[in-house]
Amino acid sequence: MLKFRKIPAETIRRMPRYLRAFSLLGQEGQAYISSQALAGQLHLKPPQIRKDLSYFGDFGTRGVGYPVSDTARRIREILKLDVAQKAVLIGAGRLGTAIASYPGFAMFGFDIAAIYDNSPAKIGKKLAGLTIQDIQTLSGIAEQRIRLAILAVPSESAQACATLLVDAGIRGILNLSPSWLKVPKRVKVVSIDLAMELGTLLFYL
Amino acid sequence: MLKFRKIPAETIRRMPRYLRAFSLLGQEGQAYISSQALAGQLHLKPPQIRKDLSYFGDFGTRGVGYPVSDTARRIREILKLDVAQKAVLIGAGRLGTAIASYPGFAMFGFDIAAIYDNSPAKIGKKLAGLTIQDIQTLSGIAEQRIRLAILAVPSESAQACATLLVDAGIRGILNLSPSWLKVPKRVKVVSIDLAMELGTLLFYL
Repeated sequence: MLKFRKIPAETIRRMPRYLRAFSLLGQEGQAYISSQALAGQLHLKPPQIRKDLSYFGDFGTRGVGYPVSDTARRIREILKLDVAQKAVLIGAGRLGTAIASYPGFAMFGFDIAAIYDNSPAKIGKKLAGLTIQDIQTLSGIAEQRIRLAILAVPSESAQACATLLVDAGIRGILNLSPSWLKVPKRVKVVSIDLAMELGTLLFYL
Repeated sequence: MLKFRKIPAETIRRMPRYLRAFSLLGQEGQAYISSQALAGQLHLKPPQIRKDLSYFGDFGTRGVGYPVSDTARRIREILKLDVAQKAVLIGAGRLGTAIASYPGFAMFGFDIAAIYDNSPAKIGKKLAGLTIQDIQTLSGIAEQRIRLAILAVPSESAQACATLLVDAGIRGILNLSPSWLKVPKRVKVVSIDLAMELGTLLFYL
């Protein structure tokens, strides 16, 4: 049993980037990649990559590199992506609509199992094969054992929705609204702010 | 003159997260925050935050913390977000449409100045106040001195679009397609894969 609590949060943050890289290399038919080559692609340093991956076992072979498909499979296991994972989508606006049909989720074993909104104009309509449900009935997801949520609502609604999600037993929230969520410690939030990611790029121009 | 090249890429990657945190704290009216409190919010360690921010000067005061609005302003300067920055959006599908109307960009000084697509059904139509242009006329952005692009196209079109962007003088690409882009070294790519971010959350469940 690995002592997951001792693994730095920043290492965990990089694991999906490694998985993405190994998955894409596998699609291209590459069998092995060195930490040097991987570092070049990901703008990281080779020792950083070797250290990160070493937390989870001996992935690579000196002089040969990392076996691409095997490493992808093992990272998928580590991140629990080897079994289908249900998620609930909150918000059926423009961003929610884009997310409901985003092909990447299915590719990595995620299944958007339910969609909620608070707008009477949207509730009852179909989106990506699902009927949009009333956010006030969100507590029903506890029975479905859904633990992940994607929050794609305007800033002003984000905290209220997060509170409903926590009450419904959600344990992880992917927050796409440009706002700060207050949740209990047991609930993990990852926030993506597209504008801020664009900000990283500017630095290098 | 700071030696920007010596700053670790991972520090640069965290700067937008700091800016996001300081901006949101400022909106809430908070004047100071300690590295401990900030670390709790961002799931980082306090020494990491102090080290990151120290690359850019003395932001904080021992026992008092970081001045929220002043630190936000200085990070904005560092990331060159203190002046309006034009970006071009490639792809007017569901994700592109969501991005064109994403409020976060304007909030941080980004201005989507042009939108391109390859679909005859979309070219000439309006989106977020702009006329969607033919991707084949992309070279025209060189005259407008636009250096940033947001790529929101399907995987199979991503590389062809990236090549067009590089030829048109783009220096930074925010890649939202689940694919791997081959670009010259002078061009910086930041890839966001929403499914992979969701993968980070799973690890903690």
